[in-house]
Amino acid sequence: MLYDLTVVQFSKMLNNLNHILDKAEAFAALKKIDMAVLLNFRLAPDQFNLIRQVQIACDTAKIGVARLTGHMDSVPTHDDNETTLEELRQRITSVLNYLEGFSEADFGHAEKVHVSQPRWGSKYLTGYEFAIEHAIPNFYFHITTAYAILRHNGVDVGKKDYLGAIPYKVPLI
Amino acid sequence: MLYDLTVVQFSKMLNNLNHILDKAEAFAALKKIDMAVLLNFRLAPDQFNLIRQVQIACDTAKIGVARLTGHMDSVPTHDDNETTLEELRQRITSVLNYLEGFSEADFGHAEKVHVSQPRWGSKYLTGYEFAIEHAIPNFYFHITTAYAILRHNGVDVGKKDYLGAIPYKVPLI
Repeated sequence: MLYDLTVVQFSKMLNNLNHILDKAEAFAALKKIDMAVLLNFRLAPDQFNLIRQVQIACDTAKIGVARLTGHMDSVPTHDDNETTLEELRQRITSVLNYLEGFSEADFGHAEKVHVSQPRWGSKYLTGYEFAIEHAIPNFYFHITTAYAILRHNGVDVGKKDYLGAIPYKVPLI
Repeated sequence: MLYDLTVVQFSKMLNNLNHILDKAEAFAALKKIDMAVLLNFRLAPDQFNLIRQVQIACDTAKIGVARLTGHMDSVPTHDDNETTLEELRQRITSVLNYLEGFSEADFGHAEKVHVSQPRWGSKYLTGYEFAIEHAIPNFYFHITTAYAILRHNGVDVGKKDYLGAIPYKVPLI
């Protein structure tokens, strides 16, 4: 289940984020707004701007999966120097490509692996705790904040853009 | 795992939301702002205000768990008529009390149960799909949006308030 909650669902949401950014680009063109205004917008003076929200959503996805599967050695690095929409798209694509390399089989030990991060010192979480209480809530936080920044600025995005396609089934008669 | 992802984690986040609302109340008192201004604030003219964000977070939690466990008959009803912080707190408490009545054992069929909602007509999702692609992303969306509304208005909330306590462990020497 951790594979579906992270690799599959993070990929879906990053694609939804791409779609939301497409809408922002179309809105900026229509309103003759410099896209940099939206990319640098923040909801509070001491909160990260849209560029940083996208960067952290990407990092939460790639690092979360790398730590759960014990693949920190292969995680792609990014220099956090994106300034344009095109560069943000490249970063999202890079993470999507990375996630695509994982399968359910990589998660055999994910629930029990000890996960740590440099700023936690010697402290750790089990993979199960890390996924449920840290990576997943953090990931949705940054996707939603990116969405909120654009919605606040007038971009016509709604819940369907955030959730993406839902695999509704029709009962057999 | 669905029990931990929903009952346990939704409860934790609703408690975090309570804590964030406490900070908003203290901020309003300090700045001599009518709390109703914050409760009725929205980030976009066509997005729900803080009251509605809290109501929907509560509903996503209670209805999500009720549908996954086949307990829609016991789900508490709320009339969506809250106008004060105290009333919102009562609603959160009501949902927390409801969630407390569930245990892991109630989730025996949760992954396979067919979940539907009135506006989906005859369409359905499996409980597994519903939890991962609908209930969980929706729940975090509304908690994060409530947080964003308050952060935007100057309330001193940060990621730790959103995530709550993390069960870090120290390795045995």
